[in-house]
Amino acid sequence: MNVATTEHVTEKPSPAFGFRLLTQDGNARRSEIVTPRGVIRTPAFMPVGTVATVKALYPEQVRDAGADILLGNTYHLMLRPGAERVAKLGGLHKFMRWEKPILTDSGGFQVMSLGKIRKITEEGVAFQSHIDGSRHMLSPERSIEIQCLLGSDIQMQFDECIELPAERKEVERAMELSLRWAERSKRAFEMQLASGGAGPGQALFAIVQGGTDVELRRRSAEALVGMDFPGYAVGGLAVGEGHEAMIATLGETLPHLPAGKPRYLMGVGTPLDLIESVRLGVDMFDCVMPTRNGRHGYAFTWNGPVNMRNAKHAEDPSPLDALSSCPAAREYSRAYIHHLIKSGEYLGAMILSWVNTVFYQDLMAAMRSAIDDGRFDAWAAETKARITAAPTAQEP
Amino acid sequence: MNVATTEHVTEKPSPAFGFRLLTQDGNARRSEIVTPRGVIRTPAFMPVGTVATVKALYPEQVRDAGADILLGNTYHLMLRPGAERVAKLGGLHKFMRWEKPILTDSGGFQVMSLGKIRKITEEGVAFQSHIDGSRHMLSPERSIEIQCLLGSDIQMQFDECIELPAERKEVERAMELSLRWAERSKRAFEMQLASGGAGPGQALFAIVQGGTDVELRRRSAEALVGMDFPGYAVGGLAVGEGHEAMIATLGETLPHLPAGKPRYLMGVGTPLDLIESVRLGVDMFDCVMPTRNGRHGYAFTWNGPVNMRNAKHAEDPSPLDALSSCPAAREYSRAYIHHLIKSGEYLGAMILSWVNTVFYQDLMAAMRSAIDDGRFDAWAAETKARITAAPTAQEP
Repeated sequence: MNVATTEHVTEKPSPAFGFRLLTQDGNARRSEIVTPRGVIRTPAFMPVGTVATVKALYPEQVRDAGADILLGNTYHLMLRPGAERVAKLGGLHKFMRWEKPILTDSGGFQVMSLGKIRKITEEGVAFQSHIDGSRHMLSPERSIEIQCLLGSDIQMQFDECIELPAERKEVERAMELSLRWAERSKRAFEMQLASGGAGPGQALFAIVQGGTDVELRRRSAEALVGMDFPGYAVGGLAVGEGHEAMIATLGETLPHLPAGKPRYLMGVGTPLDLIESVRLGVDMFDCVMPTRNGRHGYAFTWNGPVNMRNAKHAEDPSPLDALSSCPAAREYSRAYIHHLIKSGEYLGAMILSWVNTVFYQDLMAAMRSAIDDGRFDAWAAETKARITAAPTAQEP
Repeated sequence: MNVATTEHVTEKPSPAFGFRLLTQDGNARRSEIVTPRGVIRTPAFMPVGTVATVKALYPEQVRDAGADILLGNTYHLMLRPGAERVAKLGGLHKFMRWEKPILTDSGGFQVMSLGKIRKITEEGVAFQSHIDGSRHMLSPERSIEIQCLLGSDIQMQFDECIELPAERKEVERAMELSLRWAERSKRAFEMQLASGGAGPGQALFAIVQGGTDVELRRRSAEALVGMDFPGYAVGGLAVGEGHEAMIATLGETLPHLPAGKPRYLMGVGTPLDLIESVRLGVDMFDCVMPTRNGRHGYAFTWNGPVNMRNAKHAEDPSPLDALSSCPAAREYSRAYIHHLIKSGEYLGAMILSWVNTVFYQDLMAAMRSAIDDGRFDAWAAETKARITAAPTAQEP
């Protein structure tokens, strides 16, 4: 008998996925989502790393901005570089040099937006790649398989998300299909857990659908809560219904979700959206806005949004945002950033994506502090007045 | 009488432009170019910051790579953001957050390449902007005025650079025109010195022309040396004549330049070009190659060039260059960089521009050490074998 095989190895217990509600201020919540890859302080904003990179940022910049988690897109990653390839290379974290948690969407939202080149059936969605036209299939089972191959810490059920406005019948059909897909996603994830394709530190979240119809939202939420997921997302908002309708729908939906589990509002949003949603009790967000708007010359600052393409910045030596914790916002002049953006230079997109990513993280940190201190409403009133100044007022 | 106005202020003498030849190994030279903004260790490679940014790099990355000086383009900067605007904002250094020396070209090379939309006369070059079609004029006087407005530490005479191959008569005509423009550039620069538009720490370099014709090169060099410039460039090479003809022309030209002044080979080149030119006695270089090739997926490494678009990298977990002093070359996998480049992601261009800029600076540092140690030829033989491996051998 070989000594090496008999020695006692003290294995650390594999840490499980968890959620701790720390404090509440009105409906606004401070919590921690615990994963083996680290704790996610909520309310949390997840930068979007679509194809395994948060556009125009080094991963160290995303980490140093304070992001505890980022989002990867199943649709994009399955097409390029491919989920099996990412798995072979050690998973998405290692591939993109991001050690903290990653949440992946299910691909549902993005294949739906392919329009004519996709076909939805009970089984799933057949579609053609936007890159090379090749044919693919996404189903609840395949989506979970891909998310496990990527090594995602928080996975999302496969769902159908429709554009608003839409007929109630159509909204109901998609919501009910999404419920059946939630069950299949859950079974597929449990099989991955059983076979070792996923570990106890990973979690699968459900997605509440139902458009802006309060009754459909309630039915969706109750059915999903009955299936007992470790977290719940609200999907199908910020898809054309406007801020007021979104906040109203959210306000009617969240009470149907359990207080002891994380709540994630998908694909949202502007700073105002985030503040109002946190007030209602949302814990997690993701949105391309900070980086996409940055690439297009649009900056978020503590004195309101700024369109750096505007000619009034051309000879302005002042910094973009003296109050920012991002060095680039303090050190480069507006004149220089204006020049870079007008010239289509990489550095313009790099600077503004960085500034905006830091702004969003700082905004979440400020919300967490305000909740900790029990002064969320006062903070929100003061902050909204500053940072949501209409672009027309800021940009004469 | 106010006390404050009578106190004795010890003013540092305004440092002048200078050149110190430290050591020589064969014809290869180690020297220092001294400017008020810092010492340039030669042989030096100047990263190109065309429109006031070294593409896809933060200025800190360029500085930390070891660059003592970078190059700005008069043509691009005069059109956008405009020289007068840069001056109003405190000069190019402040504008782009680069405190070390800057060399500017005269705009000559770039207006010549505009083809049909420019017209050359004795006075200068009338041309249309590639951005908006607006009409402009560059002359020796205007070029120097612009370079002074930018605050360039090393300025270049206005010259005519023609494409090779060309008729001897045409090469001679352009060379002689460039001599007359050298005189006018020098007078214009002296007037700027007299009026305070330039300081004693700034310098104007002449440009030797003459194609690959040894006799024309000699005439050009001798005439310019007769005008007594503080530095001399060799222009009009690497414009289609090939490496062998370039090195041969350079070998015949450099002996006509004074040993006690810096020698700058413009727009060059590959690592092999740099090694062979340093061997002949060149002190300074600039080239877009590290950043442009980087954006196109091409990496310079200590084991030869690598085309990151090549499919063989798709599943390669190894780093791009374990020997590099650039963290990105050691930390990201080839598979990841391949994916980023194939996906057209910003981060791909950012990583490879960084890796290549560091490689070029490290190559210059290695050359400086080899000259210091009196072993340039041995170093060159060993290094060339490693880093100039034909892409076909490296990329089966």
